[in-house]
Amino acid sequence: MTVLILTCEQDVTADMVVAQLHKRGAPLVRFDPADLPGEGALSAEFVRGEFRGYLSTGGRVVSMDGLRSIWVRRPGEPAAHAGEPSPWLTAESGQALYGVLECTAARWMNDPGAAARARLKPWQLRLAHRSGFPVPATVVTTYPRVAQQFADQYRHVVVKAVSGKPPNDPPMALPTTLVPPGTDFSEVAAGPTLLQRYVAKRADIRLTSVGDETFAARKVAEPGQVDGRYGETGHDWEAVAVPAGVQRAVTLYRKLSGLAYGAFDFAEDGDGTWWFLECNQGGQFGFIELQTGQPIADAVARWLSSPTMDE
Amino acid sequence: MTVLILTCEQDVTADMVVAQLHKRGAPLVRFDPADLPGEGALSAEFVRGEFRGYLSTGGRVVSMDGLRSIWVRRPGEPAAHAGEPSPWLTAESGQALYGVLECTAARWMNDPGAAARARLKPWQLRLAHRSGFPVPATVVTTYPRVAQQFADQYRHVVVKAVSGKPPNDPPMALPTTLVPPGTDFSEVAAGPTLLQRYVAKRADIRLTSVGDETFAARKVAEPGQVDGRYGETGHDWEAVAVPAGVQRAVTLYRKLSGLAYGAFDFAEDGDGTWWFLECNQGGQFGFIELQTGQPIADAVARWLSSPTMDE
Repeated sequence: MTVLILTCEQDVTADMVVAQLHKRGAPLVRFDPADLPGEGALSAEFVRGEFRGYLSTGGRVVSMDGLRSIWVRRPGEPAAHAGEPSPWLTAESGQALYGVLECTAARWMNDPGAAARARLKPWQLRLAHRSGFPVPATVVTTYPRVAQQFADQYRHVVVKAVSGKPPNDPPMALPTTLVPPGTDFSEVAAGPTLLQRYVAKRADIRLTSVGDETFAARKVAEPGQVDGRYGETGHDWEAVAVPAGVQRAVTLYRKLSGLAYGAFDFAEDGDGTWWFLECNQGGQFGFIELQTGQPIADAVARWLSSPTMDE
Repeated sequence: MTVLILTCEQDVTADMVVAQLHKRGAPLVRFDPADLPGEGALSAEFVRGEFRGYLSTGGRVVSMDGLRSIWVRRPGEPAAHAGEPSPWLTAESGQALYGVLECTAARWMNDPGAAARARLKPWQLRLAHRSGFPVPATVVTTYPRVAQQFADQYRHVVVKAVSGKPPNDPPMALPTTLVPPGTDFSEVAAGPTLLQRYVAKRADIRLTSVGDETFAARKVAEPGQVDGRYGETGHDWEAVAVPAGVQRAVTLYRKLSGLAYGAFDFAEDGDGTWWFLECNQGGQFGFIELQTGQPIADAVARWLSSPTMDE
């Protein structure tokens, strides 16, 4: 049984998991949807109610019914490397690839439907509350007046992207930013804006959830620092124990969201409370593993390669 | 309680349902995501675990917690009508709108996750088989040799799009087409190709499923005619009874797919068997209602406006 990794060529995080899968002797195929059609190929025939077929890339072939699991790591856009790329070829190639993969018995990390829903930030906040996390007050609005009122009410608020990173190539960083006093909110009318109460924090927490395993890391914050992902503070990520209440909430969030993998960001306030900021279903973990030594890549490899119940 | 219709301005099918909702005195708001931000606006504040807020368009305002149902009819691309449209603004506006709507208690026709999966044609065929429909042999491939073998085996095969209509503006029709004998399949390597055994048919069937109501229509086919959607045959769509076995299969498909609405296409062969060709989760029904008089728009209006269990 084979592990299928959907990712682009340059992906150090995937390399870390591939190394662990090799150690375990687990067969794997790495496939970039951008290579389909071309270097990548597929064929699936519908016979007696099931699709039988295979994927092939770089001379390697994997049978659809030999797939144990599918890791949607950082897949390229289907057909992006084709000789004559077009939106239509991308649509056809994507529907063919994911359509056929949806017909296999393989486990997904993460299931595409669960992943799409889990990207919606408003939905994340509501689910986080239901799971038992404290969540800072938040507003999403196109009304300058509402944004102004929210800023007046909470005094220290941050602005962040609703949809994650801007779709630029090369990617552009867009850090969460503290809104300065006296800000003119009239531009809010030009696009939905997400404002959130600023949590004065003494540390950033990154918690990585892999199947039913949990790895938490903590990085001391400088006073007034906002986005823990950017900027040098002189502090490193260090492994930290997960409080029991947080563990219960993570377990519930995982179940309700249907995510096999999630990277949670928290702000630890002066009382030691972990405030939920977001859960990125496709978040990186390589930088955490490198600094803390936590065996996250191995946990991913174990989840991907472990036998199913009926084996 | 209000019905929210997400659709573009020019949508005759939506007009038909709006007329029925007016007849029933059901409050509704018609909102085009392309108008956000601009003519359309939204605001939602996260308070005690729930998003409270409203959508507004054309001077009408609807409260999030006053939404009974959401009909995803033919929504424009978010922010398409913005003063300075961009892929980034589209992403932000789409995530804000759908993220907030996912936090409401409204029923969806169709749920976005169910709709995305239901668009995958390979997945459709497998589900159709499981539901009890006969499904013609099919192959999806980038291998010319596999396509050639499939054509040789079944002799009469059709080629159709994997992903539906090409994303052109104005839309381009791409009819299902019979593959002529002696076809050179080498171009199959340039893009995943879907071939299907041709069902020699005496009629096309369009079955519209709305909640637990089913409307079937039949149009006599000319000998050798392939795609019933295109070309004048001199025959009209006529209402037809749904065989009991088909009804059972429709009910099962609806349950397993999670779709509140689906437009099924079948080919009726010489023995009267209805062969499953596809189920379009966003298929049109206006042309069927106009020719058969079947009250489909009213059924949609009834589904959208009916009280929930806890009212």
